[in-house]
Amino acid sequence: MPRDLRSMPRRSVLAGGAAALATAGLSSVPPGALAQAAGVPAGAAQPAATPAAPSTGKPLPPYASWKDAGALIVHSSNTIETRRNAFGTSVITPAERLYIRNNLPPPDAAIVADRDAWEVAVEGVKNPRSLSVRELKAIGIETTAMVLQCSGNGRGYFPSKPSGTPWQVGAAGCVIWSGAPVRMVVDVLGGVAEGARFMTGTGGEKLPDGIDAKSVIVERSVPVAAMADALLAWELNGAPVPLAHGGPLRLIVPGYTGINNVKYVKRLVFAAAESDARIMSHGYRMSPVGAKGDPSQPSVQEMGVKSWINSPAPGDAAVAAGNLPIHGVAFGGIHAIAKVEVSLDGGKTWRQARFIGPDLGRYAWRQFVLETRLDPGSHLLASRATDTGGNVQPQERLENAGGYNNASWADHVIEVTVS
Amino acid sequence: MPRDLRSMPRRSVLAGGAAALATAGLSSVPPGALAQAAGVPAGAAQPAATPAAPSTGKPLPPYASWKDAGALIVHSSNTIETRRNAFGTSVITPAERLYIRNNLPPPDAAIVADRDAWEVAVEGVKNPRSLSVRELKAIGIETTAMVLQCSGNGRGYFPSKPSGTPWQVGAAGCVIWSGAPVRMVVDVLGGVAEGARFMTGTGGEKLPDGIDAKSVIVERSVPVAAMADALLAWELNGAPVPLAHGGPLRLIVPGYTGINNVKYVKRLVFAAAESDARIMSHGYRMSPVGAKGDPSQPSVQEMGVKSWINSPAPGDAAVAAGNLPIHGVAFGGIHAIAKVEVSLDGGKTWRQARFIGPDLGRYAWRQFVLETRLDPGSHLLASRATDTGGNVQPQERLENAGGYNNASWADHVIEVTVS
Repeated sequence: MPRDLRSMPRRSVLAGGAAALATAGLSSVPPGALAQAAGVPAGAAQPAATPAAPSTGKPLPPYASWKDAGALIVHSSNTIETRRNAFGTSVITPAERLYIRNNLPPPDAAIVADRDAWEVAVEGVKNPRSLSVRELKAIGIETTAMVLQCSGNGRGYFPSKPSGTPWQVGAAGCVIWSGAPVRMVVDVLGGVAEGARFMTGTGGEKLPDGIDAKSVIVERSVPVAAMADALLAWELNGAPVPLAHGGPLRLIVPGYTGINNVKYVKRLVFAAAESDARIMSHGYRMSPVGAKGDPSQPSVQEMGVKSWINSPAPGDAAVAAGNLPIHGVAFGGIHAIAKVEVSLDGGKTWRQARFIGPDLGRYAWRQFVLETRLDPGSHLLASRATDTGGNVQPQERLENAGGYNNASWADHVIEVTVS
Repeated sequence: MPRDLRSMPRRSVLAGGAAALATAGLSSVPPGALAQAAGVPAGAAQPAATPAAPSTGKPLPPYASWKDAGALIVHSSNTIETRRNAFGTSVITPAERLYIRNNLPPPDAAIVADRDAWEVAVEGVKNPRSLSVRELKAIGIETTAMVLQCSGNGRGYFPSKPSGTPWQVGAAGCVIWSGAPVRMVVDVLGGVAEGARFMTGTGGEKLPDGIDAKSVIVERSVPVAAMADALLAWELNGAPVPLAHGGPLRLIVPGYTGINNVKYVKRLVFAAAESDARIMSHGYRMSPVGAKGDPSQPSVQEMGVKSWINSPAPGDAAVAAGNLPIHGVAFGGIHAIAKVEVSLDGGKTWRQARFIGPDLGRYAWRQFVLETRLDPGSHLLASRATDTGGNVQPQERLENAGGYNNASWADHVIEVTVS
């Protein structure tokens, strides 16, 4: 019995073949190597190709030592990225592979010693009070799958080189949270105070001494309507929320970028005004390039429709001529995803991909695959998502000083050289 | 602001309350303790209450040292159970909390050093050959969420005390697999040979010397129709399948008990006859109590409809009078789950629970919750599932020598004493 498909004549493959896509090209799976794209723009008429992810060689910080180092790029102790080829095709991102972005160092691990004792003060409701996690668990349970994505994911593709971590695609993951629905908590406390327009979460990080707290505290406001699907979550992917991801209790606001999902949440306020903390008033704003953030500019909150290809990924060992499933992820932010198209020619022509795996709801990503074949030579692979609201993933990024909200499909193009 | 709900007058809770279930009883959440059920039958007319899980104190074996020891009961180096209170409510079971049941010690970790090089020989097809994982990845990808459950899960509730691990509920988990669909692999190889009625997978464990291989090899046959949804899987929950769970490649047969999902699969055969390995011909048979297994008895294959409550769980610290969400898991084996009912009186009366979290498809479990309140005293909590085929979880187990297929709801009753 031949041990290798390479020696199998193609017609014998096709003879019994009902699965046309699968059979096409399986006769030629020679060893080959992906020429690592060097980040050189592929020509004026072409979008720039994605550079391979950097290898930082930094160790995981102690609070995240349980993570899968091989799947991650450690930018710093508070900024850790998932490698593009580490996402897999199983919809969820396991906690060991999930990115970390902390604005302040995490609190001492003592706060997860007795998780049920952690308290969050709820204000701006008819009957304000503090609730322990134990009490929250008696109020109700809801489970939501969602994309958690750093506001700056894709910053690494901005030619303006904004300050901040140059994330490529890996400051994102699709995870499952369980917790008490904020709307049920609010109901129990008598409802939201009149005139409340914002829901503000405050993080429980220890603040540096000698600095105005408002200048560093992690405190974010979202429109009060976001309460409808928000959770006070104690569980991530079926286990207690790790300290590194905001345990014992994290405010989860599905569809909103990572920063709005406040870790170690210790205070939840419903009020007429946004927080005046600097991270809200001046941080995470869509500022013009060269300008500083200020409250007049749009805040970075809801995510837009976005997709990218994970395989083949820059740095993958072998992309050979023949059968090649191209797969990746797509999400709509606040809408479900409707379709994904894949281009093999840098966006000149598109073909519809199929979804694989379970649909975890509107806030989750879907994994897509296009089973195709690539001939020897250079190819520019792109994906473009459309959500159920009819929004199409844009070709170009929206330039801004902070490098936020990069959903450009052109920025996420992958150049592969097929041998 | 009062810091404790205990001091909150109930009417003030109810004042603004739209969420009737959530508000009911939240005014009284005093500290309390679950009297650990001692396994004493609760009376002739009542089903026996579930004993608390044993604390073995054994360490995790080296190949599973990456697991979450606190969430697990180590029966032996090859039998490790998830604690009932460690399942959470987030649908999936993370790999760190997933049970292990190995019939033979796992192979050397060298087999996961180059995962893509692992080969499976496919026989009983028109063009038999070996395929590497790398080649499988070029054929196609599918992702399936499913309950993985040991055939002997619930054996601990058999009064006949069958030999084998006395699993309670924790030899099960809901996980997500990605791999090549077996049907696509078969298509590529020209289709199944004429007359094939069974699909047989052979595990890659190292066999002990000096013993007839057929007497110990892990080799299981399932009806060839099971091929339709079967995978040759390289990924578990978004990461490469760990050695402890059958990596680099596991045969996944959704809806079938754990043993039929052959680890380290090295051979896949389509044939007219079942395997004559002892584990197939005499093992995992529904034998009468006192009898030995033989090929005339039904084989342990498809799972039946089943559910159980995870919280409150025997051994939980605090079950206090007042509001109490009762939650657990339910699955239909080969059917999707249609509904779950919960009883607070040992099965005399039932109330319908609601599902929480995303629906991951017919082979996955659903998590259910009944938000209720319990008065002080002793309560017998039960759950009973119905699948979309109209099958209702049975009250009684089907007695058998091996202690297999225990889906009895009465065996899974939890006794709680509310203070």
